[in-house]
Amino acid sequence: MQNFVLHLPTKIIFGRDTIRNIGPETVLFGKKILLVYGSGSIKQNDIYDQVTASLAEAGLTAIEHPGVKSNPVLSHVREGIELAKAHQVEAVVAVGGGSVIDSAKAICAGAKVNHDVWLFFKGKKGVKSKLPLTCVLTLAAAGSEMNGGMVITNEETRQKFGTGNQLLKPEVSILDPTATFTVPPSYTAYGAVDAIAHLLEFYFTTTDAATPVQDRFMEGLAINIMESCRKTLARPDDYQARADLMWCATLALNGLTAAGLGMVGFPMHMIEHSLSALYDVPHGAGLSVVMPAWMSWRAADSPAKFAQLARRVFAIKEKDQYRAALGGIESLKNWFREVGSPVSLRDLDIPESAIPAIAANSMDLAAIWRLKGYDIQVVSTILDKCR
Amino acid sequence: MQNFVLHLPTKIIFGRDTIRNIGPETVLFGKKILLVYGSGSIKQNDIYDQVTASLAEAGLTAIEHPGVKSNPVLSHVREGIELAKAHQVEAVVAVGGGSVIDSAKAICAGAKVNHDVWLFFKGKKGVKSKLPLTCVLTLAAAGSEMNGGMVITNEETRQKFGTGNQLLKPEVSILDPTATFTVPPSYTAYGAVDAIAHLLEFYFTTTDAATPVQDRFMEGLAINIMESCRKTLARPDDYQARADLMWCATLALNGLTAAGLGMVGFPMHMIEHSLSALYDVPHGAGLSVVMPAWMSWRAADSPAKFAQLARRVFAIKEKDQYRAALGGIESLKNWFREVGSPVSLRDLDIPESAIPAIAANSMDLAAIWRLKGYDIQVVSTILDKCR
Repeated sequence: MQNFVLHLPTKIIFGRDTIRNIGPETVLFGKKILLVYGSGSIKQNDIYDQVTASLAEAGLTAIEHPGVKSNPVLSHVREGIELAKAHQVEAVVAVGGGSVIDSAKAICAGAKVNHDVWLFFKGKKGVKSKLPLTCVLTLAAAGSEMNGGMVITNEETRQKFGTGNQLLKPEVSILDPTATFTVPPSYTAYGAVDAIAHLLEFYFTTTDAATPVQDRFMEGLAINIMESCRKTLARPDDYQARADLMWCATLALNGLTAAGLGMVGFPMHMIEHSLSALYDVPHGAGLSVVMPAWMSWRAADSPAKFAQLARRVFAIKEKDQYRAALGGIESLKNWFREVGSPVSLRDLDIPESAIPAIAANSMDLAAIWRLKGYDIQVVSTILDKCR
Repeated sequence: MQNFVLHLPTKIIFGRDTIRNIGPETVLFGKKILLVYGSGSIKQNDIYDQVTASLAEAGLTAIEHPGVKSNPVLSHVREGIELAKAHQVEAVVAVGGGSVIDSAKAICAGAKVNHDVWLFFKGKKGVKSKLPLTCVLTLAAAGSEMNGGMVITNEETRQKFGTGNQLLKPEVSILDPTATFTVPPSYTAYGAVDAIAHLLEFYFTTTDAATPVQDRFMEGLAINIMESCRKTLARPDDYQARADLMWCATLALNGLTAAGLGMVGFPMHMIEHSLSALYDVPHGAGLSVVMPAWMSWRAADSPAKFAQLARRVFAIKEKDQYRAALGGIESLKNWFREVGSPVSLRDLDIPESAIPAIAANSMDLAAIWRLKGYDIQVVSTILDKCR
């Protein structure tokens, strides 16, 4: 196990009827807040009403900043920062999934500086302070509700970049599984794929040869994510399954799974970011295309960890390491198919001819994230397996 | 999954050469501190020197309060509170295992009130504030370094009571696995037994019928605790094994395993507390006697969860639930024997004739902890299986 510092300051309030806590929890930070949300689905169910009623009851004044898109964009973040500054809000409330929370984090950080917020994503500036952030989560996927990461797409430069900082962890996150009952099957599946991807990036890219505690934790989460996703697709209002999926997605990327792993990388996310930046595909849909390709490329050289996953998570009995590894990858791919997530560029309607451009696009992020060994040729080889 | 609030404010600094952080981390809370430690083993290795050097370098003045015993006693806590008040210390630094950290927590809470600290343990008073607490952990066992629990023995009344409060969570805990290299085999094993006990209390007493996420997390930790304990006994300076054992013990009782389980109880700890209160046996040694007895008593009525543990943790293939359950309990007992932890009252040199007195002693804690169904007869029945 490698040295680590773990600090999880986010207070999690989990369960039924918990959204009513958003007002009392937020008012501790101030009276005037920016309310960030998405395209309005929270107005079709009753989440918007619950949130605004709780905020009003706590005496809060909310400046609204709706319209965050899936694959959230920089221009909208910049508008949010302007609003936050103009109204001198004291905190930000995010109601949505990872896109909304990531946008809110960028606004929280951007509101405290005079330079452009994109400089954080380019690695040119570091976050030194931010507005307090409280969240109501409506999608089990990104894990943004308990970590310090954020991913934003710059539409002008066609760059989807992610960055992180300890300070960006939300102060409070409310996780009510019933808020995800109305998430459509496709996005439920994409969210589960995203959570699995977070686990597997850590699982396969750790440079530590022996991380048995973290391994079993991640394997258990992977099994539970797949099982609970299946159940939610069979019955969207299965509370137990929605709760399991929601909590697993949070645990998959809150720092616990990575604690002790040392250096890890996000090569699968890097390639997916280029798919999304160029073709605006849903994040999870892009990941389920990239993951089997990257895994089979990587397993060819070092099958042991892939074989362990295959045996422990997919009950593959094969003794040969490499054949076991491939069996596990195929099982994962079959689960993607089962839950309706794409497994090829063709499924995403992306032509093979786009591979060079996607590979080229990924080079900026490879540099910023310091992913060694991922040149255009390597990424093209992996993308070739995505056809 | 049941509703929960999870807040883990303790900053964990884990790994080699991390003890040097104790000064810089503590000085954030003040300049004058109470340094609490045990019987002096930290002076035989170099931990005491590392800690005092770091405190001095950070400009801290330390008032020393050594002499915490295993099964820490109330009189010593009261002395610590007097010292803390007399010197108006601004924080407490604990260097040791669960006994030292628990004593330090009681001092932190007691220093802020004018009433006797024992009232917290009797449930007559609640903790409202406390002095900041930083810790250097030297034993993988209790999990006290990241939670809000504390257990103290009142020597006068022969009561070993535990209580807990969100506020009592340490501000910072430093976990350097090398600090446990010199822990003797017996206490290494007792610590591992304690950590397993924490997991199994939650695992078996949750009232929620389906907690698959928490189950797999706990099963993975149990496997890793047993494996890493075996390795440390074979080679006491096996860093990887010491690190795994240390981190597992922390994770077993930091709130994560219990989050979502709803009401849980500590019946095995309750009975063990009476063993320790009356016979001053090491906590882990008492637990390895009580656990198989309690488990086989409980499994007779409801074997399903015990069978799940048997299958997933001990690879028992038996199809019949009850027989599988018993197979798992026997495997656990064999692991206790293997690592040298007692499995009977006889092993502890406690006569059978003591059973009525032990059962009677446990009734106070059964009442305070609101453990339903544990009358003298039931506890005697369980103790009878410990012979």
